Amino acid sequence: MSTPAEQAQLLTAARVQAAYTLIQPYIHKTPVLTNKTLNSIASTPQTADALAGTPFAGQTPAQPRIRFHFKCENLQRIGAFKARGAFHALLRLIEDRGEEEVQRRGVITHSSGNHAQALALAASTLGVPAYIVMPEISTTSKIAGTRAYGAQITFSGSTSVEREAVVAEIQSKTGAILIPPYDHFDIICGQGTTALELAGQLAEIGEELDAVITPIGGGGLNAGVATFFSDKTTKVFGAEPSFQGADDCRRGLEAGQRIEKVSTLTIGDGLRTPVGLLNWEVISDQKKVEGVYAVTEEQIKSTMKLVLERMKVVVEPSAVVGLAVCLFDEDFRRRVEKEGGEEGWDIGVVFSGGNTTVEAIAKLFG
Amino acid sequence: MSTPAEQAQLLTAARVQAAYTLIQPYIHKTPVLTNKTLNSIASTPQTADALAGTPFAGQTPAQPRIRFHFKCENLQRIGAFKARGAFHALLRLIEDRGEEEVQRRGVITHSSGNHAQALALAASTLGVPAYIVMPEISTTSKIAGTRAYGAQITFSGSTSVEREAVVAEIQSKTGAILIPPYDHFDIICGQGTTALELAGQLAEIGEELDAVITPIGGGGLNAGVATFFSDKTTKVFGAEPSFQGADDCRRGLEAGQRIEKVSTLTIGDGLRTPVGLLNWEVISDQKKVEGVYAVTEEQIKSTMKLVLERMKVVVEPSAVVGLAVCLFDEDFRRRVEKEGGEEGWDIGVVFSGGNTTVEAIAKLFG
Repeated sequence: MSTPAEQAQLLTAARVQAAYTLIQPYIHKTPVLTNKTLNSIASTPQTADALAGTPFAGQTPAQPRIRFHFKCENLQRIGAFKARGAFHALLRLIEDRGEEEVQRRGVITHSSGNHAQALALAASTLGVPAYIVMPEISTTSKIAGTRAYGAQITFSGSTSVEREAVVAEIQSKTGAILIPPYDHFDIICGQGTTALELAGQLAEIGEELDAVITPIGGGGLNAGVATFFSDKTTKVFGAEPSFQGADDCRRGLEAGQRIEKVSTLTIGDGLRTPVGLLNWEVISDQKKVEGVYAVTEEQIKSTMKLVLERMKVVVEPSAVVGLAVCLFDEDFRRRVEKEGGEEGWDIGVVFSGGNTTVEAIAKLFG
Repeated sequence: MSTPAEQAQLLTAARVQAAYTLIQPYIHKTPVLTNKTLNSIASTPQTADALAGTPFAGQTPAQPRIRFHFKCENLQRIGAFKARGAFHALLRLIEDRGEEEVQRRGVITHSSGNHAQALALAASTLGVPAYIVMPEISTTSKIAGTRAYGAQITFSGSTSVEREAVVAEIQSKTGAILIPPYDHFDIICGQGTTALELAGQLAEIGEELDAVITPIGGGGLNAGVATFFSDKTTKVFGAEPSFQGADDCRRGLEAGQRIEKVSTLTIGDGLRTPVGLLNWEVISDQKKVEGVYAVTEEQIKSTMKLVLERMKVVVEPSAVVGLAVCLFDEDFRRRVEKEGGEEGWDIGVVFSGGNTTVEAIAKLFG
C-alpha cells in the first residue's frame, strides 16, 4: 500500500477525466446558476458596522468585483455531490475485482449523512448489496432515505470505536468491502468531476474561472476540485465553519500539521469531520489550494437566507460556507480586490448539497 | 367603455402573442423543471388513511399517471409572474398615450404584494414615476422591495374604501394613471405569456401538454393562460385554497354567479382576493377553463414541503395550490385516470411565485 504522499502524486486532471467517463451515465449534469443580486451584494464594500466585533473591525472594507457561477450540486442525485464519488468508487471496484466478486461480497460504509445515501443509490443501481452503519442518533429522514435505496442499515454508537467495531463485525460475516466517505483515491477523483463539468459549462459560454471555492469537511470535494484545476490557472480555495474548531483544515495549515480530531456541532453538519490524510496531502500543497477560510454560524445563516430568498434555491447550511467567505471574509475580499483589480474575478462557488427539511429551516430561523 | 363580456371576446391567443413580442426584452424566460419523485408520488394511489376525514373518504383511490412540467415563475423577475403583466400593461399604455404623457403623469396601483414590486420595476425600467399605495400592515420586506425599485410608497388603511381614497387623492395631485393588479385586459394578456412560453418549451422537446393548472387569486394568470390555450387542445384548470371561503371562484362556478367578496387569511396570501370581473368572464367560460378545484391549508403545506425538500426550489404557499390539486383532489385525479388512461397526462403546473422568507417558512413549519 502506498503512502498518502505517494498516492497524492497520482492525483491528476487526467484521472478526474477518466472518472467522468465512467460515472457520466449515472449522474446529473447539474446546472450553473448566476444571480445579479448576489453579484451586487458581493461587489459592494461591507459597512463599518458589519465589521464591528469581527477580526476586521476598523479596517477599510475591501472593494472586490465578483461575478458568481453557482454549481448546483444540491440538484445532483441524492441531493449532493457525494453521488459522484460513490458511483466512481464502486465502478472502479468492479473494474478491479470483477462484477461477480463485488456483487457477492457487497460494500459497506459508515455515515450518517449524504455518503450513506450516495453509496446506497450506487449499489442498488449496480446490483451490489450495501451495508450502511449509521449512528443510532441519525435523523429519521436520513435513515428513511438510505433505506429507500435498499441498503441494509445497522445502527451503532456514535464514537469511532463503536462504529468501527460494527463495521468489522459485518465485514467478518459478509466479506463486504469498505468504501470510506472521503479519504480515498477514487472518491476524490469522482468529486473532482464537479470541477470538470463546471469548467466545461463556463467554456461553453466563453468564460473561464479566476477562482473556485468549495466547502471542506473531510476534504474529498476540495481535493478533487484542486486535482482537476492543478494544471490550470483557476485558483482553488476552501471554506469551513469556525464554530467549536470546525476549521481544522485552516488551523492545521496555520500550524503546519494536520489536526486529527474535531468535536463540533456546527450547523454545517456535513463539515464536522477532520480532513482526511490523502485529502490533506492535496489541500496542504500550496500549488494546488491557495487558501482556506472560515466563517461563523451567523454568517452561514445569513448566506443561507440570501440563497433561499434571492436565488429561490434550497441549500443545506454546509453548502454555503464558500459563498459566505466571498461575502464576509475581508482577507479573501481584499485578495480579490488586489488580484482581480478593475475587472474583478469570476468565481465558481460549489453548492455542495441541498438535503435539509422545512423543519430544520424552521429550527434555524424560527 | 366596453363591458367585461365584450372585452372577453377580444381576448385571443394572438393578443397573448403580441404581448410576448412587447415584453420579451424585459422578462426572464423561466425554466421548466421536471421531477421523477413528484411524478411517482402523483402516479401512486392515495391510501385509504390519507382519504379518511376528507370528502373522498371510503372511495377507491384514483390511479392517474402524471408527468409534471413545472413552469418556474418563482424564478421570474421580482420572483413572480406579475412582472409579465406589469411590463405589458405599462408598455401598452406608452403605445396608446405616448411616452411623454405617461412619463409626465406616472402610474399608480394599490397592492401589498407582488404586483406592487412588478409595477415598480417596470416603471423604473421605462423611466415612469410609480406611486404605490400599500396597507400600513404590509410586511417590511415587501415595503423594502417596492421601495428598492424607486417607487413612491403611500400607506393607507386596509379596507378598499380607505385604499381607494388614498389612490384618488394621489391621482388628483399627479394625474397618475391606474394600473390595476389583475382585472385588466393588458394584464391578462401579459400573464398569458407564461403559457405561450411553456408551450414553446415543451414543443422544443417534442412534447405537448394534455393539461395545465394555475393558482387563481384575482384570476389574471388563469384567464391569461386560458386565453392562450383557447384555440388548442390543452385543457386549463384552476386551483384555490378552500380556507375561510378563499375558493370564491370554485364556489361561484357552482352557484352560477361570481362571488364579489372574500375575507380569508389563507396561507396562500396571493390568493385572498375575489376573481375580477373580466377574469370571471374567461374562467366561467367552460370552453376555456374546464374546472376549478380547492385544497386545504394542510395540503398546501405538505405540497410546499415536497417542493422545497425534493425539488430544492423555493416557492411561496400560493404557488403550489395547482400541484396540491394534482396530488390530493380525488375528483381531479379520477378525471386524469379516466381521460388519460394508460398513457396518462403531461400536466403543466405553474409555480406562480417564490416570494417568501426563511422566517415565514419557520412560522409555517416550526
